[in-house]
Amino acid sequence: VQLDADKEALRWLEAYVLALQENLMRPLPKAREALFFPDPASEQRLIQWLDRAQRELYVCVFTITNNHLRDAVTRAHDRGVAVKVISDDECMKQIGSDIQYIRDRGIPTETDTNPDAHMHNKFVVIDKEILITGSFNWTVQAVNANQENLVVVHDPEICQQYITYFDNLWASFRPV
Amino acid sequence: VQLDADKEALRWLEAYVLALQENLMRPLPKAREALFFPDPASEQRLIQWLDRAQRELYVCVFTITNNHLRDAVTRAHDRGVAVKVISDDECMKQIGSDIQYIRDRGIPTETDTNPDAHMHNKFVVIDKEILITGSFNWTVQAVNANQENLVVVHDPEICQQYITYFDNLWASFRPV
Ligand SMILES: [Zn+2]
Ligand SMILES: [Zn+2]
Repeated sequence: VQLDADKEALRWLEAYVLALQENLMRPLPKAREALFFPDPASEQRLIQWLDRAQRELYVCVFTITNNHLRDAVTRAHDRGVAVKVISDDECMKQIGSDIQYIRDRGIPTETDTNPDAHMHNKFVVIDKEILITGSFNWTVQAVNANQENLVVVHDPEICQQYITYFDNLWASFRPV
Repeated sequence: VQLDADKEALRWLEAYVLALQENLMRPLPKAREALFFPDPASEQRLIQWLDRAQRELYVCVFTITNNHLRDAVTRAHDRGVAVKVISDDECMKQIGSDIQYIRDRGIPTETDTNPDAHMHNKFVVIDKEILITGSFNWTVQAVNANQENLVVVHDPEICQQYITYFDNLWASFRPV
C-alpha cells in the first residue's frame, strides 16, 4: 500500500511539474491581432470575432450602417448573448442607420444626447475578456475605402475598465 | 581555493534561481492601460507616453489641431527621435491644422491624396514596442467634449504589423 501511495505521489508530482512548465514556460497564447482597412477580409475577421461571443457583447460605436456587422450583432442576440449597443445621437438619425433596426429586434440600445459632443468610440468587449478597438467605424466606406485599424487584445483587466466606462456611459445616456 | 569556487557557484545558483522566479513567477508587468475621454488627465497621460519615445515615433492620425500633442511630437523630434507623421489630406487644409507646423520643423510628413477616402487612423507606435490606438483624434474637442478611448499595449509583434502597414501607407502617399 505504501508503494502505491508513493507511486501516486510521484505521478502527482510529475503532473504538477508538467502543468507548471505549461503555464510558466509556455504561457497559453493570448488572442491578439491587428486588422487593417480597406480590406473586406478584415471585416470578415471582425464578424468572426463577434460570432464567437457566448455570454456578453458590449458594442460602443459611433454609427452602424454596415449590414454585415448589424447582422452579426443580431445573430449574437438571437443565440442568447446579452447584447448592449451604445451609439451617437446624430448618427441615429442618419439615412441607413441600423440602430433603430437593432432596437426593433429587442436589443437594448442607448445614444448620447449632447448635440455639442460626439459619442465617437468604436469598441467592442466580448465575454468580458476580448477588447476590439481602433478607428474603424461600422460603415461600408470604412471597409472598402478608408485607411482604418483595429486591434484585438485578450485582457480581462483592460476589458473590465472598458466595461465600467460602458456602464457609466449607459447610465448617463439613459433618460431620467 | 576550492571552497571559494564552491561558494561562488552557490552564489551564482542562488542568483539564477532568483532571476528565474522573477521572470517566470512574476513576469515583468507589461505596459498596458486604457485611456478614456473626455478627460484632460487622459491627454496628459498620452503626452507622457509620447515623451517616453527614445528612438522612433510613428504617428498616424486623421488630424492634428491639438497644440499640446503637436508640441509632444516636436519635442521628440528635437531630442533626436526618428519621427514620421501621416495624416489626412482634407484635414491638412483645415484651419488650425498643425501638420504644416510639424513639417516646417523638419519632421517628415505624408498625407493621403484620395478625395473619396479618409486616412482615418489614430494610432502611434513608440520604439517598435508600444502601440496606442483607439477613436481619439488629436483635437481639443476630443479631449474636452467627446466620448473617446485609447488602449496602450506593449507588444512588439503587433507593433511590427502596424509599422509594416505604416510603411506601406507612407510609400503609397509619397508623390511619384
Ligand atoms: Zn452626439
Ligand atoms: Zn482623405
